[in-house]
Amino acid sequence: MTEQNGHRQHISSQFSEELSSATAQLLQMGGLVEKQVLTAVDALIERDSGDAEMVIESDKRINAMEVNIDDECFRILARRQPTAGDLRLVLAISKAIVDIERIGDEASRIARQAIILSEQTEEHGIEVHMRRLVKVVTEMLSGALDAFARRDVDKALEIAQGGQELDVESAAAMGVLAERIRQYADCVDAAITAMWAVRSLERVSDHARNIAEYVIYMVDGVDIRHTEVDAVLDRLRGR
Amino acid sequence: MTEQNGHRQHISSQFSEELSSATAQLLQMGGLVEKQVLTAVDALIERDSGDAEMVIESDKRINAMEVNIDDECFRILARRQPTAGDLRLVLAISKAIVDIERIGDEASRIARQAIILSEQTEEHGIEVHMRRLVKVVTEMLSGALDAFARRDVDKALEIAQGGQELDVESAAAMGVLAERIRQYADCVDAAITAMWAVRSLERVSDHARNIAEYVIYMVDGVDIRHTEVDAVLDRLRGR
Repeated sequence: MTEQNGHRQHISSQFSEELSSATAQLLQMGGLVEKQVLTAVDALIERDSGDAEMVIESDKRINAMEVNIDDECFRILARRQPTAGDLRLVLAISKAIVDIERIGDEASRIARQAIILSEQTEEHGIEVHMRRLVKVVTEMLSGALDAFARRDVDKALEIAQGGQELDVESAAAMGVLAERIRQYADCVDAAITAMWAVRSLERVSDHARNIAEYVIYMVDGVDIRHTEVDAVLDRLRGR
Repeated sequence: MTEQNGHRQHISSQFSEELSSATAQLLQMGGLVEKQVLTAVDALIERDSGDAEMVIESDKRINAMEVNIDDECFRILARRQPTAGDLRLVLAISKAIVDIERIGDEASRIARQAIILSEQTEEHGIEVHMRRLVKVVTEMLSGALDAFARRDVDKALEIAQGGQELDVESAAAMGVLAERIRQYADCVDAAITAMWAVRSLERVSDHARNIAEYVIYMVDGVDIRHTEVDAVLDRLRGR
């Protein structure tokens, strides 16, 4: 009996380790794409094609991490057959890594725009907006990852409902670009290129919000996707 | 003993029904977003804000379907604890519905551009390109859903590797728009609006390719994401 309990405890602590390892890998992957986004935007502003190439190259590593973590989730589900909270954790990891990987894709897209811009001398005029935008976006992302690590539902809810600051900044940047296009025919290409980069940053913030939503699902079992804010708050208060 | 076998068979046929039901719901949801994309692009070309509003409104139904199917996947995992192929099927469903839901988001984005355009009289000049683009994209999507339904790996592989036709069409449309922007200052807004719609269609094709990749994963247990084509073919040939 004692031996059996010992065996069970052993299995259970192995299981905990597997869950922690998958979570740690997710956080590492998230930290990496955050850096990619920062580097890509820096390369765009500085018109540095070398750094941009580096971002595109390092996307392979992100992709490999996604496949590895996904394999680990599959093995955990097949062998451990988790239920309730553990099952939700594994599913949250398996969904969040898709969003993280796609943030990596957006970083690569921005990097490709950086390479295009590095070959041009035209002005797009939104350097300052870009710096503000990338700050807001990476704060959302690191906040979402942090909430994942600390299972912090309040923080996750804040991020899931956020993005208004980003919308304002992004609209301002788009306005500057449209105006520049109207006024200077020779700046059209640079301005359009910069527009794609702004749109990519908007997508990164969408993905960060998705990750925050998975945190809430994981901790509370409440799926807040597509739900009105008030309904979510009611459900969480009633938990 | 016979009774027990009977019980087991009963459980197993219930389980099969649950898997079929989740798959059927996914296909229904996929068919719905395909229609949304078609309607949204039609609304954009015809500048019909009524149809566009309808697309945006019907996105709620898509979102609700995603949450329902996801709940069903969770229940299947928790109760049936599937392994091997059945586990891969449930995970493929749970991932594919995210892509389908995001196709719905892109349809809504196109619909919002349609509403903006419906209030303008400026020309963007890419009606013909849009019709071709939406044809290519919806064929990719319905092909991916078809491959999911029939577990058709060859078809799925064809779609996962495809998209070249779309790239050509999309580059042509973007070229027309950039040229129009350079030539006619009063067409800038309409052209930029049309650009966002073209970009949304590119995203729909990305999601269709993701769905095709999940089919291959589901049937062969081969994760072809981020893998070079040759390596995939080798692995499939060696299966």
